[in-house]
Amino acid sequence: MRALVTGGAGFIGSHLIDRLISRGDDVVVIDNLSSGQLSFIEPHVKTGKVVLVQGDLCNPDDVNQAMAMDIDCVYHLAANPDIRLGTRVTDTDLKQGTIATYNVLEAMRSNGVVNIAFASSSVVYGEDAPMPTPEDHGPCMPISLYGASKQAGEGLISSWVGTFGAKAWIFRFANIIGARGTHGVIFDFIHKLKKDPTRLEVLGNGLQEKSYMEVGDCVDAILHVMEHAKEQLNLYNLGSHDTCSVRRIAEIVVEVTNNHGAAIEYTGGERGWAGDIPRARLGIDKMLNTGFDVQMNSEAAVRHTAKCLLEEIGTE
Amino acid sequence: MRALVTGGAGFIGSHLIDRLISRGDDVVVIDNLSSGQLSFIEPHVKTGKVVLVQGDLCNPDDVNQAMAMDIDCVYHLAANPDIRLGTRVTDTDLKQGTIATYNVLEAMRSNGVVNIAFASSSVVYGEDAPMPTPEDHGPCMPISLYGASKQAGEGLISSWVGTFGAKAWIFRFANIIGARGTHGVIFDFIHKLKKDPTRLEVLGNGLQEKSYMEVGDCVDAILHVMEHAKEQLNLYNLGSHDTCSVRRIAEIVVEVTNNHGAAIEYTGGERGWAGDIPRARLGIDKMLNTGFDVQMNSEAAVRHTAKCLLEEIGTE
Repeated sequence: MRALVTGGAGFIGSHLIDRLISRGDDVVVIDNLSSGQLSFIEPHVKTGKVVLVQGDLCNPDDVNQAMAMDIDCVYHLAANPDIRLGTRVTDTDLKQGTIATYNVLEAMRSNGVVNIAFASSSVVYGEDAPMPTPEDHGPCMPISLYGASKQAGEGLISSWVGTFGAKAWIFRFANIIGARGTHGVIFDFIHKLKKDPTRLEVLGNGLQEKSYMEVGDCVDAILHVMEHAKEQLNLYNLGSHDTCSVRRIAEIVVEVTNNHGAAIEYTGGERGWAGDIPRARLGIDKMLNTGFDVQMNSEAAVRHTAKCLLEEIGTE
Repeated sequence: MRALVTGGAGFIGSHLIDRLISRGDDVVVIDNLSSGQLSFIEPHVKTGKVVLVQGDLCNPDDVNQAMAMDIDCVYHLAANPDIRLGTRVTDTDLKQGTIATYNVLEAMRSNGVVNIAFASSSVVYGEDAPMPTPEDHGPCMPISLYGASKQAGEGLISSWVGTFGAKAWIFRFANIIGARGTHGVIFDFIHKLKKDPTRLEVLGNGLQEKSYMEVGDCVDAILHVMEHAKEQLNLYNLGSHDTCSVRRIAEIVVEVTNNHGAAIEYTGGERGWAGDIPRARLGIDKMLNTGFDVQMNSEAAVRHTAKCLLEEIGTE
């Protein structure tokens, strides 16, 4: 099996590649290294198990170059990782999300590649969904531009299945956290405390409450579900069983970073920014029914991630 | 009230404009006249009630020019009208659907325009939906590239509501038919019979069965629902109460065109082309609950349309 991993030098991509290599797959990575880091995959590049195409999904020629390498399955993980950016810059998710996904699908079509796994997100459900949210919830009305681009990506993939016979696994991720994370609330909190160990500013009232999944669980779930779900189009939520509040995350990060005296201050308001969804928890029965369960629930994943990122970011 | 109608010289747009003008609105049209026809709105242009910006939604400058004209509400109807095209040309719906919608929203944001009505489609539901299909059906998995672009447009609009405070009415249309139609099965059948009155080739087995709504009903429904639905984001199916099969449409067109001896021949298969949805009927309870009902059911709309289009297309 030869896999193409878009965004393979990124946070989730690099963990997935560790698994793919250890099960014996060959891997091609396409990554523009805008948020991905070569160091995440460098050991595999050196052994020749990973071929890196440093290119941009917005450039069809780059995508074609990677897709022409006799690919069996595409893992399309590349995206703008900063959800908040859409409140200031409106075309990033369109280009790096929607149009990039189109370019991937079109390169698949012209190179005869059929299989695609896609990293979608719980944010496609929007904010009025029941919790836990099952895969068949509707209507999906995302409130962030990032969410809109994930929904657009799902629709494009679904249309490629219906029109051109592609086979697809669409995964709607909870908040994925863990080692090598480059964005998100835990990453932000550690950086804030590094700058000023006496106080921690939290966006919103801290009551935002979401489901967190450790990245190792996430990539294990992807590969497990793909072995067990064999429809032409497979849609699965991936998440853990529970949630963790932003308030609790702040407490954990203060504790793990050994800043016990830090004052936790809330900016107020029910959401961190326009387009932020205050509460999210995915229904994971479909995932569980394939025989897969997570190793960590939300709080354990948060604590583990805080420790990993503290080590990576450092205190100096 | 000053309305901006994208695709205003097109089939549905020009009917909507007739209503907007008769209720006293001022109208700005942006249309590239690729499938729209100046003649559809020429009387209103001559009286000065309609200002036409001949421009392309793929060009942000054109969109901005129209949006800068003190617009109160955007009716975004422009799109590639030929669903089948996506089986051959894959970037048309991306550009003229998804990216065009982004350009409209971005121009709204920069010009302080808040209200948007959007012509989405029943095809966003995909082919596994229960019938009649309610607005809260999920997951929506379109099988045509046109459907993917409509879903992407919905998501973009929804994110503009959540992130930038837009107010939106999203309408998922049944098959809209009537005078000035430039595409679709009735239009095709009349042209085929004009070419060869002895036989009528029907794509598929003729058992495809969809809900049809007369265009006058459609534009009346849009304006009625907008007066009665006042959420920040309003989602409504628009359709009639029943369906009509392609077989029955063929019989009606043969009858209306007075080609009683024509042999109706079926190419076979359950769908007309890859990405065609064989059976579709929308749940319209939400629309009915606003106090609006259609004047014509599917078969009446088909018969009316066949007569109108026959007159427009002619027999010579």
